[in-house]
Amino acid sequence: MAETGKSPIDFYLDFSSPYTYIAALMIEDIAARYERALTWHPFLLGVAMRMNEATAPIMQKLKQPYVERDIRRTARAFGLGFMSPPEFPFSPVNASRAFYVLERDQPELAVPFAKALFRTAYGEGKPIDTPEPVAAVAETVGYPAAKVLSGLKEQAIKDRLRQETDRALALGVCGAPFFLVDGEPFWGQDRLPQLERWLMTGGW
Amino acid sequence: MAETGKSPIDFYLDFSSPYTYIAALMIEDIAARYERALTWHPFLLGVAMRMNEATAPIMQKLKQPYVERDIRRTARAFGLGFMSPPEFPFSPVNASRAFYVLERDQPELAVPFAKALFRTAYGEGKPIDTPEPVAAVAETVGYPAAKVLSGLKEQAIKDRLRQETDRALALGVCGAPFFLVDGEPFWGQDRLPQLERWLMTGGW
Repeated sequence: MAETGKSPIDFYLDFSSPYTYIAALMIEDIAARYERALTWHPFLLGVAMRMNEATAPIMQKLKQPYVERDIRRTARAFGLGFMSPPEFPFSPVNASRAFYVLERDQPELAVPFAKALFRTAYGEGKPIDTPEPVAAVAETVGYPAAKVLSGLKEQAIKDRLRQETDRALALGVCGAPFFLVDGEPFWGQDRLPQLERWLMTGGW
Repeated sequence: MAETGKSPIDFYLDFSSPYTYIAALMIEDIAARYERALTWHPFLLGVAMRMNEATAPIMQKLKQPYVERDIRRTARAFGLGFMSPPEFPFSPVNASRAFYVLERDQPELAVPFAKALFRTAYGEGKPIDTPEPVAAVAETVGYPAAKVLSGLKEQAIKDRLRQETDRALALGVCGAPFFLVDGEPFWGQDRLPQLERWLMTGGW
């Protein structure tokens, strides 16, 4: 990404969100077309939301079949495979912390690692909730698994993820995927067409 | 709409949903382009959801500013004005019952009435939660206000709305707007592009 003087697109992501997997594969092309850098921010709003939202069981029961169908159909619409990891929903804590290990120690590997995590979880349907598979994915992009496993235990890394989550909440990030473009918020994979139109026109 | 042998699009709508207002103005064009009839089904899932979902106040507080901004931006994106009615959210019970009064007694006025209700609520920001303004809107499309006011009290009309709501729930309708196209469900104004692609291609 060449320097263009334009501010980057901030991309708030949750590894446990299938819609974020689909959005992650689309936002890079959009950013490139409009010559914007893209800053990836893994955070834990999903966990906070699931812990706090006491949705009535009947509504969950009603929504779940639709949402499962919609995710698969939307993935197919973009030519993507979709498989659900064996445990779902799962905790994105280890995957998110590992992202910040790579981002600190070998920043050029962090985004390829995030994309490989999404592919593993939703392209191959494999778990990424515990340290070992997360470390194995890091190895595939050229970062040593052992360094992920030790990094996950560091207080500084735990603090970093907590700070990113606090910062996201303070910015009004209320779901995932969530994007900020020159201060304008866009929530959801299905808002990417609006986001692109915003980049094209400068807003309306 | 000419007879085409194709099954109609079923449109499940909630008068208290601003996104449904936007969708209502788009789905008619889509249906016409693909030579489909459109069947309007006002129902009360919104009320059931709001009564049942005990969302944590912090999440509501986080989402509300985003959603308000998103509704206005999305309306502008389609060249629509948007004003919020003075009380929001409001009960769509009277508006929905009135729809079924017109649908029974003068069916050709029911859809123009539904669109006029949406325009009144979100184009002009006026209330449509009590019988009087609902009846006044009916008058503007040529149906006597007095007949709305008496119809709203009929047990048969109350039953009709309850049956429509039960039937929608039984069909898996889990939000509004919600559409069924040849058995395929689409939830949300932001799924209209997928719905249109489904009509164009026959599905994927």
